[in-house]
Amino acid sequence: MQYSNRVLHTPSSFIRNILKVTDSPNVISFAGGLPNPISFPLEKLQESINRAIDKNGSKVFQYASTNGYLPLRQYIADKYNRNHNLGITADDILLTTGSQQALSLLAQVLINPGDGIIMEEPGYLGAIQAFTMSEPSFYPVTLEKEGLNLDELEVALSQPHVKFIYTVPNFQNPTGLTYSAERREAIYDMIKDKDIILVEDDPYGELRFEGEDLPYIAAGKSTNSVVLGSFSKTVTPGMRLGFIISKNKELMEHIETAKQASDLHTNIFAQYAIYEYLTHNEYKDHVNKIIDLYKSQSDIMIAALEEFFPENVEFTRPQGGMFLWATLNNGMTSLEFFEKAMAVDVAFVPGDPFYTSKQNVNTLRLNYTNSSPEVIREGVKRLAKILKEVPVAVK
Amino acid sequence: MQYSNRVLHTPSSFIRNILKVTDSPNVISFAGGLPNPISFPLEKLQESINRAIDKNGSKVFQYASTNGYLPLRQYIADKYNRNHNLGITADDILLTTGSQQALSLLAQVLINPGDGIIMEEPGYLGAIQAFTMSEPSFYPVTLEKEGLNLDELEVALSQPHVKFIYTVPNFQNPTGLTYSAERREAIYDMIKDKDIILVEDDPYGELRFEGEDLPYIAAGKSTNSVVLGSFSKTVTPGMRLGFIISKNKELMEHIETAKQASDLHTNIFAQYAIYEYLTHNEYKDHVNKIIDLYKSQSDIMIAALEEFFPENVEFTRPQGGMFLWATLNNGMTSLEFFEKAMAVDVAFVPGDPFYTSKQNVNTLRLNYTNSSPEVIREGVKRLAKILKEVPVAVK
Repeated sequence: MQYSNRVLHTPSSFIRNILKVTDSPNVISFAGGLPNPISFPLEKLQESINRAIDKNGSKVFQYASTNGYLPLRQYIADKYNRNHNLGITADDILLTTGSQQALSLLAQVLINPGDGIIMEEPGYLGAIQAFTMSEPSFYPVTLEKEGLNLDELEVALSQPHVKFIYTVPNFQNPTGLTYSAERREAIYDMIKDKDIILVEDDPYGELRFEGEDLPYIAAGKSTNSVVLGSFSKTVTPGMRLGFIISKNKELMEHIETAKQASDLHTNIFAQYAIYEYLTHNEYKDHVNKIIDLYKSQSDIMIAALEEFFPENVEFTRPQGGMFLWATLNNGMTSLEFFEKAMAVDVAFVPGDPFYTSKQNVNTLRLNYTNSSPEVIREGVKRLAKILKEVPVAVK
Repeated sequence: MQYSNRVLHTPSSFIRNILKVTDSPNVISFAGGLPNPISFPLEKLQESINRAIDKNGSKVFQYASTNGYLPLRQYIADKYNRNHNLGITADDILLTTGSQQALSLLAQVLINPGDGIIMEEPGYLGAIQAFTMSEPSFYPVTLEKEGLNLDELEVALSQPHVKFIYTVPNFQNPTGLTYSAERREAIYDMIKDKDIILVEDDPYGELRFEGEDLPYIAAGKSTNSVVLGSFSKTVTPGMRLGFIISKNKELMEHIETAKQASDLHTNIFAQYAIYEYLTHNEYKDHVNKIIDLYKSQSDIMIAALEEFFPENVEFTRPQGGMFLWATLNNGMTSLEFFEKAMAVDVAFVPGDPFYTSKQNVNTLRLNYTNSSPEVIREGVKRLAKILKEVPVAVK
């Protein structure tokens, strides 16, 4: 059987394959991107689920509309208008089967084979995977401390058939970096007159433990803006509930068609349940608890990295979210490091799958949200021991 | 903005657009494909949901594996081995976001633009929509009373780059027809030595109210077999839980990659909840209740059609499932009929969207599962009145 080019070119998820190897109680894993289970409001969710059934009966189990449960879309619109001044209505929102589906749908409706996508480098590997299924040309732009490199962005914008730019402006996956206010404005100035969609994928935006919220790059200003949101990092990822926000009516109509073709509609039970949760609980208090937890875990990991790691290893200091990003600078690739780390039962994600055009890189992603303070310190210690045994070399 | 060819060529669902028009309490609708809400075991589901949470805690809300919850896959494997002698294991099953997603994934991994799909004509419009996103060449084969027309199938099989045949062998959507045992065998003989996948989409198979269960066409015999199943017609469609069964390891690996790219994994909460439901209840007794209901509704619709419709209208007599199929034979197209029917507040689905190569057909789909006996009779009466007012003409 000859399989499709698109699937033959699409990597199966490096992380998910790593997780299969590292899914042992002996392994200290900084590899996953799992929210800490404390971020699931278990009892309140159970109450909400029962209330949703009691109030709505068989409707929570029946087929439903493709764009999603109206009261939930209205809730999301109100929240983004209040917090981000987006000026949107419920009709500017479509609920998706996790925001991973939103990535897949965007590429499906915008990309013919060879059309361009401008990607942060390094960039979110789930997005690389979803987009690859539509056979794009990737134009990677270096993600610096302040955001996309503007010179490289200008070159990328001049490439043929560029359809959209994919960004994670807050606490980026994999780097933990956040775009500065100035860089956001500069990027907007460069794209505002172009027929190119600016995607701002923002699953972590609410999980800020340092600094002030910043305005989106294009959302609220341009109809060529798309914002992706999710309940995965603050309520539950297992229920797969994300959403697309855009005031671009034509885009949203095509996305609705692609969504119908993909899975008819998003699980309606999950939509009712999460709506009940959001409207009957102090969501902000709950999010604040997650923030406090993740801040303490991030602080502990950074302190351990400072204490134990050799000085030639650089790492980012996230203002929120779930990850930080290390650069080895000792001549070792992160895949070599990964093998040695697995020998001492510590896992992380080597940088390679976050690049569309580079291999054998010396960068890696560390997740801190799913380990206890003691385990974080112990894991960092073991990694440091490996690094200190390696003579510094230039490859 | 130039959108992708695939989405520009994909029709938005005719049925979902009709449902928007007909979603009024005044309209008698034979248009939908909704299970009767009685088919949702509401109280038992609520119990199962609470048990799933109480037993498994935060695991029901966390990220999960792409192929699905192992105990549920094992349950499905055991059931298909018991009932259909398929000789499968849990690893031959992948859980999908409804079986609509299975259709989308199959086309994504098998179809390059222009590759062939052999379709029943008329065929399921959700499949036509899902497949169109991969830009195939459709080779329609007439669906007769006994199954696919064998002469046309032979011609279609000789077309270039045919990747798979899509069938709904039991109580087909839209016609309600069921393939005979002889036709199943004849089809298997024609394809068994070919490098072509035979897809048997079987969401209604358990809902047989007449005759005996028949063996699948290729499942259990060939690794080029795919069976699609669903909990939508017997437990709940709103939770979007379907599955793909295939012993073709290479195909299943590619499908897993495409599934990761599409939505990471299927809602794990729904998987735990439905597993709890299936393992703590008399599922067969529940299905028998649905069968009794649908049989009575089908009987009432057929009796009303026989009593009120003019003789030149032909219609199928399903042995199970949710639909029957009428052919007008009076010179009128079903779209013309639809307009007149909407004027008297009765809705059905005109045949056009079930064809990949025909327009202005004289066929239509009637659903009987979601209306009371009185409403079915009244709706058929109103339709009959229109048909009797039209002079018989040859176009």
